[in-house]
Amino acid sequence: MLRIGMLTSGGDCQALNAAMRGVVKGLANSKQEIEVYGFMNGYKGLIYGDYRLLSKSEFSGILTKGGTILGSSRQPFKLMRVPDENGLDKVEAMKQTYYKLNLGCLVILGGNGTQKTANLLREEGLNVIHLPKTIDNDIYGTDVTFGFQSAINIATDAIDCIHTTAASHNRVFIVEVMGHKVGWLTLHAGIAGGADIILLPEIPYDIKKVAEAIEHRTQAGKGFTILAVAEGAISKEDAKLSKKELKKKREKSKYPSISYEIAAEIQAATGTEVRVTVPGHTQRGGSPTPYDRVLCTRLGAAAAQAILDKDFGNMVAMVNGETKRVPLESVAGKLKAVDPDSQIIKEIKQIGISFGD
Amino acid sequence: MLRIGMLTSGGDCQALNAAMRGVVKGLANSKQEIEVYGFMNGYKGLIYGDYRLLSKSEFSGILTKGGTILGSSRQPFKLMRVPDENGLDKVEAMKQTYYKLNLGCLVILGGNGTQKTANLLREEGLNVIHLPKTIDNDIYGTDVTFGFQSAINIATDAIDCIHTTAASHNRVFIVEVMGHKVGWLTLHAGIAGGADIILLPEIPYDIKKVAEAIEHRTQAGKGFTILAVAEGAISKEDAKLSKKELKKKREKSKYPSISYEIAAEIQAATGTEVRVTVPGHTQRGGSPTPYDRVLCTRLGAAAAQAILDKDFGNMVAMVNGETKRVPLESVAGKLKAVDPDSQIIKEIKQIGISFGD
Amino acid sequence: MLRIGMLTSGGDCQALNAAMRGVVKGLANSKQEIEVYGFMNGYKGLIYGDYRLLSKSEFSGILTKGGTILGSSRQPFKLMRVPDENGLDKVEAMKQTYYKLNLGCLVILGGNGTQKTANLLREEGLNVIHLPKTIDNDIYGTDVTFGFQSAINIATDAIDCIHTTAASHNRVFIVEVMGHKVGWLTLHAGIAGGADIILLPEIPYDIKKVAEAIEHRTQAGKGFTILAVAEGAISKEDAKLSKKELKKKREKSKYPSISYEIAAEIQAATGTEVRVTVPGHTQRGGSPTPYDRVLCTRLGAAAAQAILDKDFGNMVAMVNGETKRVPLESVAGKLKAVDPDSQIIKEIKQIGISFGD
Amino acid sequence: MLRIGMLTSGGDCQALNAAMRGVVKGLANSKQEIEVYGFMNGYKGLIYGDYRLLSKSEFSGILTKGGTILGSSRQPFKLMRVPDENGLDKVEAMKQTYYKLNLGCLVILGGNGTQKTANLLREEGLNVIHLPKTIDNDIYGTDVTFGFQSAINIATDAIDCIHTTAASHNRVFIVEVMGHKVGWLTLHAGIAGGADIILLPEIPYDIKKVAEAIEHRTQAGKGFTILAVAEGAISKEDAKLSKKELKKKREKSKYPSISYEIAAEIQAATGTEVRVTVPGHTQRGGSPTPYDRVLCTRLGAAAAQAILDKDFGNMVAMVNGETKRVPLESVAGKLKAVDPDSQIIKEIKQIGISFGD
Repeated sequence: MLRIGMLTSGGDCQALNAAMRGVVKGLANSKQEIEVYGFMNGYKGLIYGDYRLLSKSEFSGILTKGGTILGSSRQPFKLMRVPDENGLDKVEAMKQTYYKLNLGCLVILGGNGTQKTANLLREEGLNVIHLPKTIDNDIYGTDVTFGFQSAINIATDAIDCIHTTAASHNRVFIVEVMGHKVGWLTLHAGIAGGADIILLPEIPYDIKKVAEAIEHRTQAGKGFTILAVAEGAISKEDAKLSKKELKKKREKSKYPSISYEIAAEIQAATGTEVRVTVPGHTQRGGSPTPYDRVLCTRLGAAAAQAILDKDFGNMVAMVNGETKRVPLESVAGKLKAVDPDSQIIKEIKQIGISFGD
Repeated sequence: MLRIGMLTSGGDCQALNAAMRGVVKGLANSKQEIEVYGFMNGYKGLIYGDYRLLSKSEFSGILTKGGTILGSSRQPFKLMRVPDENGLDKVEAMKQTYYKLNLGCLVILGGNGTQKTANLLREEGLNVIHLPKTIDNDIYGTDVTFGFQSAINIATDAIDCIHTTAASHNRVFIVEVMGHKVGWLTLHAGIAGGADIILLPEIPYDIKKVAEAIEHRTQAGKGFTILAVAEGAISKEDAKLSKKELKKKREKSKYPSISYEIAAEIQAATGTEVRVTVPGHTQRGGSPTPYDRVLCTRLGAAAAQAILDKDFGNMVAMVNGETKRVPLESVAGKLKAVDPDSQIIKEIKQIGISFGD
Repeated sequence: MLRIGMLTSGGDCQALNAAMRGVVKGLANSKQEIEVYGFMNGYKGLIYGDYRLLSKSEFSGILTKGGTILGSSRQPFKLMRVPDENGLDKVEAMKQTYYKLNLGCLVILGGNGTQKTANLLREEGLNVIHLPKTIDNDIYGTDVTFGFQSAINIATDAIDCIHTTAASHNRVFIVEVMGHKVGWLTLHAGIAGGADIILLPEIPYDIKKVAEAIEHRTQAGKGFTILAVAEGAISKEDAKLSKKELKKKREKSKYPSISYEIAAEIQAATGTEVRVTVPGHTQRGGSPTPYDRVLCTRLGAAAAQAILDKDFGNMVAMVNGETKRVPLESVAGKLKAVDPDSQIIKEIKQIGISFGD
Repeated sequence: MLRIGMLTSGGDCQALNAAMRGVVKGLANSKQEIEVYGFMNGYKGLIYGDYRLLSKSEFSGILTKGGTILGSSRQPFKLMRVPDENGLDKVEAMKQTYYKLNLGCLVILGGNGTQKTANLLREEGLNVIHLPKTIDNDIYGTDVTFGFQSAINIATDAIDCIHTTAASHNRVFIVEVMGHKVGWLTLHAGIAGGADIILLPEIPYDIKKVAEAIEHRTQAGKGFTILAVAEGAISKEDAKLSKKELKKKREKSKYPSISYEIAAEIQAATGTEVRVTVPGHTQRGGSPTPYDRVLCTRLGAAAAQAILDKDFGNMVAMVNGETKRVPLESVAGKLKAVDPDSQIIKEIKQIGISFGD
């Protein structure tokens, strides 16, 4: 009998359920008898022993369901070695739960932080398999993460909707897209939505260049301009600040987010009315796109095979169209950001989209 | 030969193009020869003589297209009698354009403010026909306005997306829905999205009642709560303020909108994390729903018939499933708000949704 | 303690779950203790005693879920008085189940046939409440049925998709829309999708007129034509046949449905290539539109109130924007068809859409 | 001055306009002066000299628009060397048009057949660039074709809709997905839609195995089964027939397509009611998904760069996430089919989906 544990950690996203379904269906068709325990609310459930035995039927009909049937929570990696408010050693607690339940493996779905803790558990001797979940697409070692394409669709829908209203009113519109550290989501949604200007964390902007791009459009007779702005977009000046200085500056800012600040700057520079739209957490929600459903079904099945092969300590990734086991030690702690000199950026610049640089 | 003018005024919305297509197709099939002049950017185009002759082919393929091919702008009714910065008498200017072009009728698409100006032009002797456009559904004398059902769909999509993420994280979420004066859009999107609490301008809320409703859910084992909050939601205390006092208070507020204020109050009262999502102008955009396309095709055809009948001075409305000509003088200046004692509010209360009252 | 039974009968559609949720939530907030029994697969469950006690939590999260959690089946009204293959008297069996369970009321969701059986049970002395479900919108006594607007959206999506491909290839396309007896769905989807020709059961077509309308478009430089054709569309000649003769003719036809026959006729008459698309049962599926969710929530709440008021024997309908109890005896057996002389048909003809008549 | 020609050939699909926009925007931002001629209705326009100079503004706002602004038609490769009904040598005619207009390059968007003709024109000395368009994803030398992901979404939507109705009625449903020669679209839509059985041209089925899979589900308490069946699905017996014999058999068949035949066989074998849905040409229509919009923007920009580099005779492909120029001579005439022994097929079998083999 094989007993596995499963948890979803960090910000939720689409297709978490689809991935878990893939794992469980992949195991259910093996000859081995399997028990799957679900830990509630991410690592929290593992630390505090909040879990339940999952029946196979719970994974039926969840392919298209957003969110996660296990719940999730953020448990920062850097606090994992810090005892909790009652002095509990979290890492030890997780190990105890693991051994108490006599688990053969832990399947962990999550992003970069989650991956680091998964790697830590691997170092501590647990059998772990990680599945790369995040709308940010910033996990090193896989071509794509699940949630990414689904989030692109929602952010693009928002830009599509703004397009018709922007064109009717000759205004400048900013759509703020999720992504504090990396700009993949903003880049793709910006291209797909036909944004005129795209501002990413990886390519600091010069507000003068942004204003020029807007005025260039006005002169060309285009009455409106749409900007796709990442939550982590940053000006060239701010990019020179230390992390600490930047944090301080942001905290003192009167604007709820960078988009509002950029809006004020554009208004000052061009005299045009600027409106800000913040789709926010909707980008994490809803039914996963067919792309993500296929991706997760494959990753889940491949994870099941890895479990049956007793091959642990890996992230199951998608590389050049094939699922692949990538050692956690080789990827944990690395971030995949947009390269300003990459082919895609050059292509997008060529069609006339400005990055404000 | 019949020459008509057409303009779209106020905040744009879905199905404006569909309605104009209905008018033009309805006229094109009559035996009369017709010329249609489009005024650009609402009353602005009529005031300053910015117009062009529209070809029939421009109305082909726009049934599904959001926005307005004529552009729009806000020209407040209360400033219509006030000369512009160059001393121009706007009403006289509009009349001059009308007579210079020898128009037989003006078809005016817009909301409450637009309707008031349309009525003013009628009083000044022009032949006008008004079509009730607004996502707010607050026009008196028609059962429904176009844009309303389309906006409900977008706001509901947002709540649907938030549902999966809220359920995964045990949080309180506020989705801010458009509507400063009336709550129709928030009410319908809130019901359709399965919101637990709905706050409307017409039903002032008591933050204690809101907090109670949230805690009631927590006690019932529901980890999350979703609020649909209208832009114009108002507390019982604020509802006692004069318009002037309220405006002053809002201007001094550190919150960008009422939702952020309510979020802070809930957080203080319940200790739960609250997240705010603001779909904003996306609610005005995108392709109209089939409902709005049918509505606008009918209103447009009925307006065409009214023109052919030389029956002017009316809004073409939808009443009990039939199009109807409603005299502008009987409706201009009236607002259709949600009645707190209406059947729908009672029904929604009965299924356990709280209005915080 | 109040014990009610509930069943969904006939072809399934969107928003059945939303309506049941409305009923149960509406009852749950009353002071009375309630038990709800669900009968599986429509009247079948009532006849053969296949039921289970439903928990309140089963109605949580189903607002947006298509289909019916109770299952459905077709049990023709005309066979209700005919014993089953084992000689069972179905009506007596239903009454026995009702009395055995000591039910206070039966809530029955279904279309025209379902309504007739509901009325029969009323005549037999049972307390029944009927909710008007059907994508056909053909129930007499209510302005709208649930499922109708959701089905319009799916059929319109199909026409929208066909539009781009038709325009690229200069072809004639037929989209076959559900509706054997009435054409409401075809009419609305046809208008919303911008169909050029709409063929309904209520308005027999002349294939020459259809061909003329296509050639008229070709002459006007429009390379393509889209027809929205109801499953029950009928030619003027066939309309003269007796029901029996028609049935015989259809059975002998080599075409799987009327659309293929019309396609062949158009091809013969105009020489143009014609393609047929049959969205079929997709029109009954998927998540209900916000319109249907609001409608069903209201109907459900109103049904709950009727139960609490002990006011039985009615359909809970939507009339002029208000929910209303309509006596079953006044509506059962009546069909609401499209009136060829109605305002909507005149309006649609005015904008140049042909009905082939 | 650089003068280029552009045409779209074969069955239309989503994102053709997006790709052309990418090419034109990519060229417009170069320092070179450019003229773009559009040939109407594919190679037909090139053969018969039906073209027009395109303005840059025609490419504005078409990113999201389905179909092709140039029109398309099927001109089979095998007939290219055969004179037309007036004895015209088509290849010579194309060359004459090319030289008469003094074109520097032809940008050709299309699938496998189109690519073969593009390669023929290259052999004849013309400068050509090919962009891989097809919902079938069967073009050798590129990881993905545009239209594919958009078509998956539409086919998956259909399966999603069928899911709710199938579950309500305990039926077997077949959704027929486009694809006569290859099964990529059916495979991906089948996985994404949660189909239980997937039948592809590349994996001949045994109807007994199909019936077993259905009965296996019935025994497991699942009342319904959904099959995703490619237009080109084939039984093991038929797979043994020669191409000629098969064609003959199909022509004599009383079923409009293979799905209806399979439905009859299942009904005979299991006694269960089977319903067939044929989304048909809707799969080619509608607005492209964000994925396809990004793909086409990149391919278009890369094609523009290839033109500026005067590097001709290639398909611009997407390989491992990067755009790449692939010599036409190395790919023309090759087909990319689903490999029955590939990783994806093994993964999908592992989660319990049957291919009927």
